[in-house]
Amino acid sequence: MYPRLLEKVKKVLQTKSDVFVLTSSGTGAVEAALSNIVKPGDKVIVPVAGEFGSRLADSVEIYGGKALRIQVEPGDSPTAAQVEEVLDREKDVLAVAVVYNETSTGTTVRELEKMGEIAKKYGALFIVDAISILGGDWLPVDEWNVDVCIAASQKCLAAPPGVSIISLSEDAWKAVKRGRPATLYFDLPRYKKYLEERKETPFTPALPLFFALDEALNMIFEYGLENWIRRQETTAKAFYSAFQAMGLKLFAKERARSNVVIAVYAPEGIEVGKFREHLRVKYSVVVAGGFGELKNVIFRVGNMGAVTAREVVTTVSSIESTLADLGAQVPLGEGVKAAWQYLKDL
Amino acid sequence: MYPRLLEKVKKVLQTKSDVFVLTSSGTGAVEAALSNIVKPGDKVIVPVAGEFGSRLADSVEIYGGKALRIQVEPGDSPTAAQVEEVLDREKDVLAVAVVYNETSTGTTVRELEKMGEIAKKYGALFIVDAISILGGDWLPVDEWNVDVCIAASQKCLAAPPGVSIISLSEDAWKAVKRGRPATLYFDLPRYKKYLEERKETPFTPALPLFFALDEALNMIFEYGLENWIRRQETTAKAFYSAFQAMGLKLFAKERARSNVVIAVYAPEGIEVGKFREHLRVKYSVVVAGGFGELKNVIFRVGNMGAVTAREVVTTVSSIESTLADLGAQVPLGEGVKAAWQYLKDL
Repeated sequence: MYPRLLEKVKKVLQTKSDVFVLTSSGTGAVEAALSNIVKPGDKVIVPVAGEFGSRLADSVEIYGGKALRIQVEPGDSPTAAQVEEVLDREKDVLAVAVVYNETSTGTTVRELEKMGEIAKKYGALFIVDAISILGGDWLPVDEWNVDVCIAASQKCLAAPPGVSIISLSEDAWKAVKRGRPATLYFDLPRYKKYLEERKETPFTPALPLFFALDEALNMIFEYGLENWIRRQETTAKAFYSAFQAMGLKLFAKERARSNVVIAVYAPEGIEVGKFREHLRVKYSVVVAGGFGELKNVIFRVGNMGAVTAREVVTTVSSIESTLADLGAQVPLGEGVKAAWQYLKDL
Repeated sequence: MYPRLLEKVKKVLQTKSDVFVLTSSGTGAVEAALSNIVKPGDKVIVPVAGEFGSRLADSVEIYGGKALRIQVEPGDSPTAAQVEEVLDREKDVLAVAVVYNETSTGTTVRELEKMGEIAKKYGALFIVDAISILGGDWLPVDEWNVDVCIAASQKCLAAPPGVSIISLSEDAWKAVKRGRPATLYFDLPRYKKYLEERKETPFTPALPLFFALDEALNMIFEYGLENWIRRQETTAKAFYSAFQAMGLKLFAKERARSNVVIAVYAPEGIEVGKFREHLRVKYSVVVAGGFGELKNVIFRVGNMGAVTAREVVTTVSSIESTLADLGAQVPLGEGVKAAWQYLKDL
């Protein structure tokens, strides 16, 4: 079933490149990419729009690479021009590595396609961490010049957690072959060899999760990949519109707003931890808090994978009620009303 | 459930040390051990009794360590004296790293306890790869001075594949802290921090497999860990005795014989691939071939985890019949008769 699964993964990534399914979380696939590609001294441009961008930059340095960080204002996302400026200034940049969707701030890179073009123009590899967004927004890997795409099972593909995905273009393989991978478990040439010679993984796979991912992809293709992505786009609009109607302030700038994580400022006087706890206990709805400094500033609503009209109205109405329970000034019912404008055609 | 699962893992390892469950196969846990512990220039003694010992030695070198290999004759296993000789000759050896059960040759290190004592005497860490044997033979981690124990879910613990286990003694932590781990995904200080502060893994866990391992351990404790190990000891005796009664030659030397993998020479004139195929197709019994040079020389029978009298008689009788089908001279029924002497009291 492994080669069959990989064909489905290629279809969801819209790529003809080599792909592998790894027995690890998405972070393992990040490690696979960097430990194979980055050699000591390599320069890698990493836009940092939050926690995951920061982690990606740190990881480049584990393998002796030099991370050229582009710091982005919280709530915004990096632009292609910012990346081009660094490519232009620095010599011999090996790669641009970018987190497509920054879950810590609810932002998505809206100039990903343009960034890929620019990376190609300067002869740099384009590495995209799409862990939290693959299947939740557009990502035609080959068309957008993505050399390495990293993803995971449990986000917008709606499969159980524990396996991850990686694709490698021919240019990516060339970079890998410059030296021995700094890893045993994620040694990608070994994965390629075992696939070609035995149609197997080199190490024991998490078989039950491979079967689950296979079935999750069947379900997505049955629904239609485009429909699947469109539904998340629509439910995202419903969420954003509902929170605005409730008088809440959105965290992400409009041009950077994620369709898969909706980040919202907690209203004045509402403590995020208490809000989340109340929402969970009384209404059985779980939302996340902020990361690091944003811990008590924002809450985040997941809109990944199998989110339907039902989940949106449940979440919106529960949040409205919780805010009212906690004494916030909230126009009850306005959120649901606003959301319904988008949900009615689902 | 994570801290609860870790308590059960400690119980099966018989250790008070820190333990972690990782979302990776056993090879990932090997990587976790070496990428955290081995720093450039460190000397690590690695007895090589087959494929997995060889892989372990190679892995030491990925992290800049110097692997001091002790080559062992195929079918035999390393002795404590061999290890002591190298410890005595070399200065400042960081660790002795040994594969407890070499599945490629069906051998188990019978002097593991003694080896641990000797490593301790010379101030070296004792790292034990118990992937294929934990739960299938004796391994009291603390009593036997094991500083790092590596294991996996899908072998003698009889849980699904995809998660692995690692333990670290205080001395192991000291070695880790000499420098930054050469890994992001297997950064063990980070696992410790997240466990202590949040009772969580630092990266997304393979939750369904964590639950499955938890339940597999419940089943083992219900049966009794000692009974569980004893049953595998008994079924191993039944297998060895059956193959000898059938006139087959055992591959492993008597002092090195594994209870969990039974390696047997194919009889003269029988092609291993054809034998395995016939056995699988006609009798629905799957056995392994040899590794590398032994590919067409031996076959290997797994005796791991939930193997009962039924599995033994089914396997033995099917092998007898297959050999007869293929025209080998085999005393039909003798294998089952010999096995039954051990199985009757199960």
